[in-house]
Amino acid sequence: MRRTDGSRGDSLFLDRWFAKLLSSLARGLPVEVALWDGTVYAASSEPAASRVSIQSRQALLGLLVDPSLAFGDAFARGQVTVSGDLVRFFEIMESAGRQAPRWFDNRAWRWLRRLSPNTRAASRRNARHHYDIGNEFYRLWLDEDMAYTCAYFADPGMTLAAAQRAKFEHIARKLRLKPGDRVVEAGCGWGGLALHLAREHGVTVRAYNVAHEQVAHACDCARSAGLAGRVEFVEDDWRSIADECDAFVSVGMLEHVGLENYRQLGEVIHRSLKPGGLALLHTIGRNAARPLDRWTERRIFPGGHVPSLRQMMDIFEPREFSILDVENLRLHYARTLECWRGNFESRAAEVERMFDADFVRMWRLYLNASIAAFRTGAMQLFQVVFAHGGNNAVPRTRADVYAGRPRA
Amino acid sequence: MRRTDGSRGDSLFLDRWFAKLLSSLARGLPVEVALWDGTVYAASSEPAASRVSIQSRQALLGLLVDPSLAFGDAFARGQVTVSGDLVRFFEIMESAGRQAPRWFDNRAWRWLRRLSPNTRAASRRNARHHYDIGNEFYRLWLDEDMAYTCAYFADPGMTLAAAQRAKFEHIARKLRLKPGDRVVEAGCGWGGLALHLAREHGVTVRAYNVAHEQVAHACDCARSAGLAGRVEFVEDDWRSIADECDAFVSVGMLEHVGLENYRQLGEVIHRSLKPGGLALLHTIGRNAARPLDRWTERRIFPGGHVPSLRQMMDIFEPREFSILDVENLRLHYARTLECWRGNFESRAAEVERMFDADFVRMWRLYLNASIAAFRTGAMQLFQVVFAHGGNNAVPRTRADVYAGRPRA
Repeated sequence: MRRTDGSRGDSLFLDRWFAKLLSSLARGLPVEVALWDGTVYAASSEPAASRVSIQSRQALLGLLVDPSLAFGDAFARGQVTVSGDLVRFFEIMESAGRQAPRWFDNRAWRWLRRLSPNTRAASRRNARHHYDIGNEFYRLWLDEDMAYTCAYFADPGMTLAAAQRAKFEHIARKLRLKPGDRVVEAGCGWGGLALHLAREHGVTVRAYNVAHEQVAHACDCARSAGLAGRVEFVEDDWRSIADECDAFVSVGMLEHVGLENYRQLGEVIHRSLKPGGLALLHTIGRNAARPLDRWTERRIFPGGHVPSLRQMMDIFEPREFSILDVENLRLHYARTLECWRGNFESRAAEVERMFDADFVRMWRLYLNASIAAFRTGAMQLFQVVFAHGGNNAVPRTRADVYAGRPRA
Repeated sequence: MRRTDGSRGDSLFLDRWFAKLLSSLARGLPVEVALWDGTVYAASSEPAASRVSIQSRQALLGLLVDPSLAFGDAFARGQVTVSGDLVRFFEIMESAGRQAPRWFDNRAWRWLRRLSPNTRAASRRNARHHYDIGNEFYRLWLDEDMAYTCAYFADPGMTLAAAQRAKFEHIARKLRLKPGDRVVEAGCGWGGLALHLAREHGVTVRAYNVAHEQVAHACDCARSAGLAGRVEFVEDDWRSIADECDAFVSVGMLEHVGLENYRQLGEVIHRSLKPGGLALLHTIGRNAARPLDRWTERRIFPGGHVPSLRQMMDIFEPREFSILDVENLRLHYARTLECWRGNFESRAAEVERMFDADFVRMWRLYLNASIAAFRTGAMQLFQVVFAHGGNNAVPRTRADVYAGRPRA
C-alpha cells in the first residue's frame, strides 16, 4: 500500500523495499511508515493514527536489524519522528508486541542474565547511570519530595505532590508503623519516604542507596528538616543490610536487583526483619515473564528487569515468607507518568539547555512509552506486604488502612 | 529415655525398639510415645505437652512405614490416642515437619499427579467422597447458610454465622457487584454465597457443583427463598462453564481442581469473563509448594492439592490476567475451624449415632490438625482478585471495600 506524497528524492529501490517490509511487519495496525523523500507505506487500509518518519538510511537499516534499540536511538537523535499522539503510537505497538510469539523464554533469559549479573559494582554503576545525572534535572519535573516512583491517587482529584504523600501514607499504614519502630529502607531515592515516615510516624529509619547524588541530597534534606538524628542515609548496597528492624520497605528498587539476586534479597530481609515485623516491596511488574525491551535495558535502566509475580516468588518462597497483601496500582502509574510528562514538557527548554536536544527526545520517548506500557497492561505496579511465616501478630483485616479516608 | 509406668504386659523387645525409634525421630520435641503396656519413651528431656499412646502392634508398625496415613487411620480406629491438647500436638508436629528436608519436589509431584489426574469423572467421585456424606451431618455443625469455607471475622467479636455473611459481603464488595450483573460461581457448595449475592446485591447467578447432595440442598434453598428465578444451580463440572459473566467467583474449589488443570481453569475464566469483569478465587494455599499429607489426600480430600501462589500462576499467566488484589486470611481460617470444632464436639454424640465412633475420631483429627496447620502457617488462605490484562475499568483503590465498616 504505497503512496507517494512528495518528490521521490534520493530513496533507492532497496530503501523502499525495506520500508515496505517494515510496514508489512506492522500489518493491520493503524500506522504509516514514511521515508525521507516522502514515500509513505500504510500498514493498514484504516486511517493511520501515527506516522513514523524515517530520516536516514542508517535509521532504516537499524529498525530492521534491532528494532527496539534502533528506534529509541534514532528517535533520540531525531532520525525517526512520530506524528500523532506519541502515547497512542506506543499503545498500538505494545498491543501488537503482545500478540507476537515469545521467543525469549524465562530460562534463556536467566541464562543470559548470568553473563552480566548485577554484582555490587555493576549495581552501583547502573544506579548512577540513571539517578546521578543531576538532581537539578529531576527537580525540574518531580514533586517537591522528589519521589520518583508510582504515586497513589487516593482521591482522583489529587495533585502529584499530594498523591506522592498519599503513597507514603499508604505504605506507612500497610506497615502498621508505630512511634519508635525501626524501619530499614532498601533503595531510598532522594529520601522522601524515609523523611515522611520519621516526621509523620515517629519512627527511625536507616535507608540504603548506591546512587551518590541521591544520598547527598537526602542527607541535606534530613539536616534541614531536623531529622538527621532519626533518619540515616547510607551510601551502600542492599546486600550490606544487617540492621534488625520492625519494618522493611523497598520502593522501586527491585527493578534494579536482577532476577539472579532475588533469593539473596529474601535472605537479607529474613535476617533483618524481627519475628513480628512486616515488609513491603513496591515494584513495577508484569502479568507474565518478559525481558525488558532492548532500548530501555541499554539506555535507561541498565541491568533492569521487570518481574512477573511468579518470578518474585524467588524472594518469598525459599524462606517461606507469608504473603499478606498484594495490590496492583497500574493505572496510578499511568497517571503519575502523565503528571511527570506534563512537568517535563513545560520545562523542556531548560532540560535542553542543561543537556541537549537528543536528551530531551530520549526522555520524551521514555515517558510516553511508559505511559503506554501502564495503560495497555504491558506493565503493572505491585505492592506486596509480607511477614515471616510464623508471625501470628499479622493484621487481621485491612480496614485500618482505609479508616478515615475518602471513598475513592 | 525410657520410662515404664505400668506393667510391661505383652510388648516384645522389637515393639519397644520400634517405639524408641519413633521417639528418637521426634527427638527434642515435647512429646512422649507410650505402648499398650505402659512403656513410655520421651522424645525430649523437657516435660511433654502430648503423649501418643499406641494400642496395637499393627498401629506401631504402620507409624514406621507410612507415618501420616497410619497415624490418621489408627487415630480414627482408636488404636492411637493423644493426651493433652490435640491442636498443640499437631502444632508441634507441623513445626517439626517444616524443618524436615523436602524429598518431594514440585516436578516429581506433578509427574505423580499425572498418574491419577482430576478428570471430570474423578472430580465427581472425589467431591462426592467428602461433600455427599449427608447434608444432615454438615447441618449439625456449620452455620445456617452451610458455608464450609473460611469465614471473615470483620469484627473480632462476630459469631460464625455473622462472619460467614461478612465473607459473602467481602467477596461481593471485592467483585464490585451491581444489580443486574451476571455472576458465575464455580464450586458452590450448598449455595450460600450464590443466594446471598442474588438476595443482597440483585445479581443473577449460575452456580456449578458436581456434588449431588449439595446441589439438591441449594436448589431447595433457592426455591424456598423465592430466588429460583435468579439463581440457577447446575450439577456439572467447572469445565462445562461457558456463560458470559460480569463476575466469576470460586470459593474453596481450587483445592480440588488439581495442578494439572490450572491452565484449563484459566482458559474457562478467560472465555467466560466479560472484558470489563472481575474474577475472584478463594483458596487454601501454601507459602511454598508441598504435597498434601497422605492421610488428608487419601481419606479426606482425594485428588486435593493446596497450591503455593507460584503454582497458582499457572491459572493467571498463560492468558495474562492482571492480578489486582491478594489478601491472606490465614488466621480467619484458624478461627473458623475453632468454631466448627466447638459445634462438632457439642454434637459428637449425634454424629456417632449417624455414623460411628471411628467417624467421629476421624473428623476430630481433621478439624484439630487443620486448626494447627493455619495457626503454624503450614496453610494460608488466599483471596485473589484479577481481571483481563487489558481491562482499564478496574477499581482504582480498595477504599470502597472498607467504606462504612468497623475498624477491626
